Amino acid sequence: MATLIAPAQHSPVEDAEAVHKACKGWGTDEKALILILGHRTAAQRQQIRLAYQNIYQEDLVNRLESELSGDFERAVYRWILEPTDRDAVLAHVALKKVSPDYHVIIEIACIHSPEELLAVRRAYQLRYKRSLEEDVAAHTTGDIRKLLVALVSAFRYNGDEINARLAKTEAEILHDAIKDKVLNHEEVIRILSTRSKAQLLATFNRYRDEHSTSITKKLLGEGDKGNGFSAALRTAIRCINDSNKYYEKVVRNAVKKVGTDEDALTRVIVTRAEKDLKEIKEIYYKRNSVSLDQAVAKETSGDYKAFLLTLLGNED
Amino acid sequence: MATLIAPAQHSPVEDAEAVHKACKGWGTDEKALILILGHRTAAQRQQIRLAYQNIYQEDLVNRLESELSGDFERAVYRWILEPTDRDAVLAHVALKKVSPDYHVIIEIACIHSPEELLAVRRAYQLRYKRSLEEDVAAHTTGDIRKLLVALVSAFRYNGDEINARLAKTEAEILHDAIKDKVLNHEEVIRILSTRSKAQLLATFNRYRDEHSTSITKKLLGEGDKGNGFSAALRTAIRCINDSNKYYEKVVRNAVKKVGTDEDALTRVIVTRAEKDLKEIKEIYYKRNSVSLDQAVAKETSGDYKAFLLTLLGNED
Repeated sequence: MATLIAPAQHSPVEDAEAVHKACKGWGTDEKALILILGHRTAAQRQQIRLAYQNIYQEDLVNRLESELSGDFERAVYRWILEPTDRDAVLAHVALKKVSPDYHVIIEIACIHSPEELLAVRRAYQLRYKRSLEEDVAAHTTGDIRKLLVALVSAFRYNGDEINARLAKTEAEILHDAIKDKVLNHEEVIRILSTRSKAQLLATFNRYRDEHSTSITKKLLGEGDKGNGFSAALRTAIRCINDSNKYYEKVVRNAVKKVGTDEDALTRVIVTRAEKDLKEIKEIYYKRNSVSLDQAVAKETSGDYKAFLLTLLGNED
Repeated sequence: MATLIAPAQHSPVEDAEAVHKACKGWGTDEKALILILGHRTAAQRQQIRLAYQNIYQEDLVNRLESELSGDFERAVYRWILEPTDRDAVLAHVALKKVSPDYHVIIEIACIHSPEELLAVRRAYQLRYKRSLEEDVAAHTTGDIRKLLVALVSAFRYNGDEINARLAKTEAEILHDAIKDKVLNHEEVIRILSTRSKAQLLATFNRYRDEHSTSITKKLLGEGDKGNGFSAALRTAIRCINDSNKYYEKVVRNAVKKVGTDEDALTRVIVTRAEKDLKEIKEIYYKRNSVSLDQAVAKETSGDYKAFLLTLLGNED
């Protein structure tokens, strides 16, 4: 469930005018911006952007970029974008890093439904005039590249039917691949990138039944060859298996980190606030005995903090 | 351009009734079936199928399957299906062969536009409850598998922009890969499966400029390692480069073959009759000094012959 609190009705024109007023003259009224934009759904935000363009002949995104700065700006920028476009931006930013943040790519590829991933691939092409897989291939190498290109190219079957016999066979293929430390084995990539999520869950469950441990724990136990491939596999499996649990760990690590990983924190809160941030918050609380709101309040400050707390549904 | 001759207006109900009459009682009036179905566009055929279902509570496809036989039945069956569904069937039939006919898979992956390929992938899932790439992976092995899975998973950028510098770099990567006989090199697969068609054409042209021969000729000269990988690469490149020329060769080989390759002949005529069969016929005539109609008339017989000639736009 969403944590975002938004009114059922709103006036795009009034909102656009209020946003314009908040940006006018010396200084910016960040509180007013948060009060409006932090309480509007994706569709409502697009209407505001459209109304703003019509009234002021200016793209609201550009205006906000010039008015705001730092973590707050980046969070608002991600928030104001249409969600599939935002994912395209997130993927692009992750790829452009000196050391590409392939976990972001895996999240997009493995957590989205097949149709959602496809929408992101379309948005990426529209924005960058290249395909997502093309850029993934250009910015990565070796085994990681094979895995990532296969994952972002996937258009999985989305049905519930599973083949129990296949789950058994492929759980063994995965087991043998981990045991023999040939993790880059093309069979592992094939299974993770072509099978439906329902089928993969059956395979992971079968693995657990046979080997009394989860496949991700087993992978962790086998260590990494130093190229991050094993970590990438674990991320993919965890994203497919239980995205809420996966996200809880991302925010936990982000908050725990000395200096806080604002990029990761922003990404999870902004992308999940309209989807399942409530569940992620619950898991967070169970795991850490402190609420995510409290943790965020402790580790962030200023407008950035106020904005994240608003998206977290914290009305205080 | 299409060779199919179809009326601008037709009555789906009258057509359905005429088809029903042709199938009623002892024997089937194949001539009547050809006269109707051989002169209707894909959209019109779907309307007839719908009208038939409404009037007779029976799927026209099933009825035709029980009425007809042999090459004629297979041709009519492929013709009556909605085109993306037909491609899903063609892919499935190709994969189910003892020795999968991977050229059919490559055709579908490389000749269709990105959106068309996507539509085929959707149709495949709808019909078979699995993804196309999943079945491709399950029915192939080794290097061919890597190539085919990457090609069918592609959702290429479809714009015209090209990067000339990239074309130069990647023409050299392809050249080195062929020279060193490491044809399964992942770079070759990456380039062929992720770059836009416009970019690939620029790369192939650049190859020709630098090496005074086309990349497909060069591949042919280097021979095959016996696993068909080099032949598969050539098929992919030829499909991307010039699908009409590619299809001309497919029908030329089909007609030339002792006993005729009816599957290939039917496939090309049925799938291209509403698209570019006219161009394919022209190239055929230039290359063979005999018209495709004449060649087909010589190598086929009966209702099958009459049906193919009708789709070829031959009114005699």
